[in-house]
Amino acid sequence: MRKQKIVILGAGYGGLMTATQLQKGMGMNEVEIQLVNKNDYHYETTWLHEASAGTLHHDRVRYNIRDVIDRNKVEFIQGTVVEIKTEDKKVILEEGELPYDYLVVSVGAESETFGIKGLKEYAFSIVNVDAARQIREHIEYQFATYNTEVEKKEERLTIVVGGAGFTGIEFLGELANRVPELCKEYDIDPLKVKIICVEAAPTVLPGFDPDLVNYAMAQLERKGVTFMIGTAVKEATETGIIVGKGEDEVEEIKAGTVVWAAGVRGNSIIEKSGFEAMRGRVKVQPDLRAPGHEDVFIIGDCSLVINEEINRPYPPTAQIAMQQGIVCARNLLALIRGKELEAFKADIKGTVCSLGEDDAIGVAFGKKMKGGTASFMKKMIDNRALLMIGGPSLVLKKGKFNLL
Amino acid sequence: MRKQKIVILGAGYGGLMTATQLQKGMGMNEVEIQLVNKNDYHYETTWLHEASAGTLHHDRVRYNIRDVIDRNKVEFIQGTVVEIKTEDKKVILEEGELPYDYLVVSVGAESETFGIKGLKEYAFSIVNVDAARQIREHIEYQFATYNTEVEKKEERLTIVVGGAGFTGIEFLGELANRVPELCKEYDIDPLKVKIICVEAAPTVLPGFDPDLVNYAMAQLERKGVTFMIGTAVKEATETGIIVGKGEDEVEEIKAGTVVWAAGVRGNSIIEKSGFEAMRGRVKVQPDLRAPGHEDVFIIGDCSLVINEEINRPYPPTAQIAMQQGIVCARNLLALIRGKELEAFKADIKGTVCSLGEDDAIGVAFGKKMKGGTASFMKKMIDNRALLMIGGPSLVLKKGKFNLL
Repeated sequence: MRKQKIVILGAGYGGLMTATQLQKGMGMNEVEIQLVNKNDYHYETTWLHEASAGTLHHDRVRYNIRDVIDRNKVEFIQGTVVEIKTEDKKVILEEGELPYDYLVVSVGAESETFGIKGLKEYAFSIVNVDAARQIREHIEYQFATYNTEVEKKEERLTIVVGGAGFTGIEFLGELANRVPELCKEYDIDPLKVKIICVEAAPTVLPGFDPDLVNYAMAQLERKGVTFMIGTAVKEATETGIIVGKGEDEVEEIKAGTVVWAAGVRGNSIIEKSGFEAMRGRVKVQPDLRAPGHEDVFIIGDCSLVINEEINRPYPPTAQIAMQQGIVCARNLLALIRGKELEAFKADIKGTVCSLGEDDAIGVAFGKKMKGGTASFMKKMIDNRALLMIGGPSLVLKKGKFNLL
Repeated sequence: MRKQKIVILGAGYGGLMTATQLQKGMGMNEVEIQLVNKNDYHYETTWLHEASAGTLHHDRVRYNIRDVIDRNKVEFIQGTVVEIKTEDKKVILEEGELPYDYLVVSVGAESETFGIKGLKEYAFSIVNVDAARQIREHIEYQFATYNTEVEKKEERLTIVVGGAGFTGIEFLGELANRVPELCKEYDIDPLKVKIICVEAAPTVLPGFDPDLVNYAMAQLERKGVTFMIGTAVKEATETGIIVGKGEDEVEEIKAGTVVWAAGVRGNSIIEKSGFEAMRGRVKVQPDLRAPGHEDVFIIGDCSLVINEEINRPYPPTAQIAMQQGIVCARNLLALIRGKELEAFKADIKGTVCSLGEDDAIGVAFGKKMKGGTASFMKKMIDNRALLMIGGPSLVLKKGKFNLL
């Protein structure tokens, strides 16, 4: 009898968790597993803002996939997914085709530009390791260039961050810590540097406790961040951004660096492959399968799960992706063994938003926290992700131990 | 009686040596000394190629001027020279005016582009600390960007060095050592990187012993450098350079980075101030004064001294600038004391050209040397410059001790 083959697309939090859980739960030779990923490494998406600001080296936010999979049970294939042909039960890679019996789609998110002109061309997005280190180097180059020019362009020292959601705020916290180092490195007066956060919504960190939001804003403002709240980005240009001002007026903000951190959408592979989706996210069945597809699981940022308490979708997070990976692995084995599938239920243990190396705000175990306590909690959460996927040895290798 | 005032313009090798020698040789309250420099630091011009390649941090190639001058005897003024008004005996700075009784002009060199189109706009020159770290960051940014683009542009990984003289060859040596590090940092296949040296003359390092030149070329080629000798740069463009090929043909070399290292000229302040000069260099009297100016000494890269053995000018080097500084200080004191001035005589102890951290070629004390021996000698020469200007404590602070 031919062994059933599971193909997992993407080695982010969801995909890699599925793979490592499967290798633990499966019997010897029970099933064939192939894990496909563009790079040979997994990266901590939730740490990329640090690599982008230059406060943590990008090699600290990634590790080799082969180091956490059991190569006797999981075959790793480095490849780039182009499209999924569900009718033919195969995946088209840039490198060739891959047939499957069961498929796990965990291909992650893309930056969502909401059709705003110029963002794709002129703004950076914190989407992966390549992008993160390019942002770091771009900012460094702006600072390095400033003193070489006879006519000094102060806009080289202006960094605009579009969006005051989770990623935007966390990136601002790192930037505010990084700027004094950059000023020292390139002989620049810190007063000439501007960090501006532009957010269309009427508040930063929507959904967060207002006390904590006020604390976060005050801390970041103290470190030099300027907030323009209730201000929509109309366009990104070669020299900066154009924002709405009042009813009809617009204003240009000149900036050497624009980082767009105002939202993500599911991967465009989802629509390309014919799944019904909202912004690349598929409303999955309780068992995490795509409606109408008995053999396709969709987890992580491309899945949409409703939080029934408030009747709105959960935001895509690493926490949910990992929890889905665990259930997805169990359901795959159940399918193969002819058992019943279980329903996924998110268990939100807490949410902590970093404000830089030693500061944070958050809610965990139902308690509000800020400052050092929250920062400690954030690092514990970061280490926990490593623990869940790679075990204690990975925590020792890549964990965060600069605890207060 | 009013004290005579000596103003020294520039704190490079020549100017700083003059200042430190004066403070040693002068009597208490014998003379007033002002030292003017654009930055508050001195940098080792002969080490800038290392900072440019990124193999030595730019803070290692500079030190604070106030740390080596005796502030009871020498007043340091941070200022930028615009013009010298010899008839009025004053210097125009961007920040104001400075009268003098005796003037030392040691304002250093500028990059010489020989009127080649586009070089000023599109090529970098290794001229100072600001420029060096910009080159380092520009190259890093090219490497960081390569993997972020869907359509890979291999020219981002091409570095063209114009000129195979001293600076060009030393920079190539550092670059060749730096590229493997950059490839590791940015996940780039080293085979995709190109380092191309374009030189119009029929040989590299003209004037050097042919055996040593062959050794240098072989070593650099082994590390991945391609030489295009007898090839003239016709133009620099936004995308690379255009070189002559045969009689009338031209060829474009696409390159993300072009560094022009094919020559220097004296500072344009010289011509602006009405001194008779060839490419910014004044043929000074044997006592180092400018012809027709009893009160103006010109030393370093803006002075021209003939090597009578071959009836050609000495190339401008740190070695000669420092020797001139010593004689200039003695002649200034002689002038003030009404004594006779002495004639400067260059004493070339040797010339060593680095090929990277652990390799070099050179002639010192009449002996040819290469490899580790020459590299050791090079570091000793570098340390000697520190010793002569700042004494043993500066050698300990900034010296090169990674000796083989």
